[in-house]
Amino acid sequence: MAQSSDLQPAFVDPECGFDIHNLPFCIYNEGHLSSDAASRARIVGCRIGHWVINLHSFADHKEGLFAEPAKHWDERTKQILPEIRDALKQPTLNAFASLGPEARKAVREVLQRELSSYKGKDDVDHILSPLGPFMSEVENVTLYCPFKIGDYTDFYAGIHHAEGVGKLFRPKGKALQDNYTHIPVGYHGRSSTVVVSDTPIRRPAGPILVPSNSEGTKQDIIVSPTRKLDYEVELGCFVGKGNAMGTPIPISEASSHIFGYVLLNDWSARDIQAFEYVPLGPFNGKNFATSVSPWVVTPEALEHAVGAGVQHPDHPEKLQPYLREPTPGVLNATITTSLTRAEKNWPTTGKLSRVDTSTGLLWSFPQMIAHHTVGGCSLRPGDLLGSGTISGPPDKPIQDGLQTKGSLLEITKNGVIPIPWRRSRGSGEEKEQTGDNTFLRDGDVVTMSAIADHRGTKISFGEVIGRVIASSQS
Amino acid sequence: MAQSSDLQPAFVDPECGFDIHNLPFCIYNEGHLSSDAASRARIVGCRIGHWVINLHSFADHKEGLFAEPAKHWDERTKQILPEIRDALKQPTLNAFASLGPEARKAVREVLQRELSSYKGKDDVDHILSPLGPFMSEVENVTLYCPFKIGDYTDFYAGIHHAEGVGKLFRPKGKALQDNYTHIPVGYHGRSSTVVVSDTPIRRPAGPILVPSNSEGTKQDIIVSPTRKLDYEVELGCFVGKGNAMGTPIPISEASSHIFGYVLLNDWSARDIQAFEYVPLGPFNGKNFATSVSPWVVTPEALEHAVGAGVQHPDHPEKLQPYLREPTPGVLNATITTSLTRAEKNWPTTGKLSRVDTSTGLLWSFPQMIAHHTVGGCSLRPGDLLGSGTISGPPDKPIQDGLQTKGSLLEITKNGVIPIPWRRSRGSGEEKEQTGDNTFLRDGDVVTMSAIADHRGTKISFGEVIGRVIASSQS
Repeated sequence: MAQSSDLQPAFVDPECGFDIHNLPFCIYNEGHLSSDAASRARIVGCRIGHWVINLHSFADHKEGLFAEPAKHWDERTKQILPEIRDALKQPTLNAFASLGPEARKAVREVLQRELSSYKGKDDVDHILSPLGPFMSEVENVTLYCPFKIGDYTDFYAGIHHAEGVGKLFRPKGKALQDNYTHIPVGYHGRSSTVVVSDTPIRRPAGPILVPSNSEGTKQDIIVSPTRKLDYEVELGCFVGKGNAMGTPIPISEASSHIFGYVLLNDWSARDIQAFEYVPLGPFNGKNFATSVSPWVVTPEALEHAVGAGVQHPDHPEKLQPYLREPTPGVLNATITTSLTRAEKNWPTTGKLSRVDTSTGLLWSFPQMIAHHTVGGCSLRPGDLLGSGTISGPPDKPIQDGLQTKGSLLEITKNGVIPIPWRRSRGSGEEKEQTGDNTFLRDGDVVTMSAIADHRGTKISFGEVIGRVIASSQS
Repeated sequence: MAQSSDLQPAFVDPECGFDIHNLPFCIYNEGHLSSDAASRARIVGCRIGHWVINLHSFADHKEGLFAEPAKHWDERTKQILPEIRDALKQPTLNAFASLGPEARKAVREVLQRELSSYKGKDDVDHILSPLGPFMSEVENVTLYCPFKIGDYTDFYAGIHHAEGVGKLFRPKGKALQDNYTHIPVGYHGRSSTVVVSDTPIRRPAGPILVPSNSEGTKQDIIVSPTRKLDYEVELGCFVGKGNAMGTPIPISEASSHIFGYVLLNDWSARDIQAFEYVPLGPFNGKNFATSVSPWVVTPEALEHAVGAGVQHPDHPEKLQPYLREPTPGVLNATITTSLTRAEKNWPTTGKLSRVDTSTGLLWSFPQMIAHHTVGGCSLRPGDLLGSGTISGPPDKPIQDGLQTKGSLLEITKNGVIPIPWRRSRGSGEEKEQTGDNTFLRDGDVVTMSAIADHRGTKISFGEVIGRVIASSQS
């Protein structure tokens, strides 16, 4: 295939991160429908520039792009074309993902071929057929969670986060457990509360421990809205093809079970979590909300966005064979996290952190998949895997002038030091924070965005945004 | 309403546990269809005696039992009659459960009225209309998982199990964590591998620690089929009506969110679990399989099957208000666990344990629901809650001559002592076990059955059965 830059339609800003090489999938609707009709009208879409292409209509179109298989397609892809068309007419990406990489690649290829025919045409209004009528501006659509998620699993692959949290919570014990470098440790999360970006996040309440004397030597249990609401910077991975129960996915095939990637904010209530998590792991401290970005970025778009990952003496030599990858490496993207806080009636936005994911991840998603299934657990299309919080290495605490840590727990040392917040506003004024400045307040908006690099071209993940709203309990 | 015994149709054996007062719901089909057609033909059923009533056909029948609302029904129940009919035609119980207790009670009432008209008729062949044509013998049907399960949560409400396991794993530490008596501790499980009774259970493999010197002071990590495959005796609870994300379910309303109960075997690989579970909880040690019984026994059938539960100094006085029940008490049923083992070419069956659930549970399902949602987590119709392993109190280790412990981990003290197995066969012969006799072997069949008491009438849960098959890995 020619270089993407040769194929770029002129109406796409090459700096926007959504060029002809990215083409992330989404679920959307036109947004102007009434809420009931809207829920029935969820559409499979694909983003190009500031536009979303309606793939449902494409699939329905008798003379459209998916009417006939391309001559050079392999037999399997030709055979599943009717299934691809059906899958693109579903209200989630589950059916499309279940068809495996061939289906995804075929759709990408058809779209790239069509879009590249607009090279040199700098105004999308010129596009009459077949693409134009099927495109909506991103500003005019409503985006939904791209999958019906069966199970959500959160891993703990960010080694610097795991070590930092271990030191905070167990200052006298081992920062990392003995198992940490031998298996991708993970736990089952809650799928019912995975929500798409822009869904408001209600502050959870629950039992927490508070000091009951001034020396802090005694503690009471009270039920309270969390006083330690936090975010966690993660990558999310949606499963494509599943596996049958009892049949592990070998590491050599694991990447073919990945449909694509999103940004994931694993909201956490640190005080609720601290009281509950021994011995069975996080529960109410995590299960109130998990936010994902709406654009599912494909493995094809990220083919060259690979870093070495964290180098550890146990890897790969001491790894069990089921975790040894043919080509080691982890997904690399640069994730920037910002906070917008309404303070004295004016909103202030500041960047909190920036991390290159490959500097923080000990384990890759294919390794997580191989481990998840080694005992026979079945993954289903649309299942969601979280990477775990990604923080940069302790010897590089700053990148581009920003913290590299992926949670306020680490940035504030569990509420001991204030957020080192670099704020900006129209006037450029800087002022001191008032009130508590260690965890999230009601009204705060947390925004994560990410960019990966494809041979010098930006591949954007878009954003995952969440606004904190007050607890329903006083 | 009259006493159930007055209404009993004569074709039902009053000792069978499935009389006119039980009427558990299920999903089944006729079993003689080809496998493809069979998957499309899942039917909502209700058990009476040795028969399953086809509620789909009932709902479809224009002159049938659900054609008109009963005059004495409340307005809401009358209003939702069309929704009840639709829900009974679905391939899972999710839609029916989502309608809340009114729908379930209305269907029970109609069935009880109809069935009681057969009082005195001792042959089901006499039943011509409308019931007879809609009934199948249990032996002739295939049973399925009654719900499409969104999320599965496993609690840890069996205090004697929690304490026993704590002593085994942390002999120098606290047997129970400080949080244990203050909150129903739980963790998220895996919904993709919840299977109905009779599904074979493949022995999982995974990384485990084995001694690498004869003193046992050093350990190696190897990947191996589990050497400590275990069962866990639990009650399962299916959620009926759900709650919106961000909106807790108050304890006073929690019981109205329960659709019904099943038996649950939480299969566990103790060696895999031991290596992985600190700090984030059980993962591959549990997620390979969870079996449930096919008959969903309703709260109405179990109205009087309530015991005091474990009395603890912290309860109810020190409980947080969100966990204080208007009427304290836990579901009581007697669960018997048996093992069938193929030994020297003949199968031997022996009973392993028996426990009255109310002697082991510190927390009720309504308390688990109130805790699960206190932070805003949403439950959805068909979500599954496990009680945690139920073991009797340490001062009553034997009931009816059987152990009261709900796992081999406890019975064998983590593989130290052999299973005290009371076997029976046709000849009544008793013989010593050969080979390892501490955890489950390939070919073993674990059967749990349960009976509750409704004012002297047996309410059966039926059975949850699982046969262990060999690992696919050597």
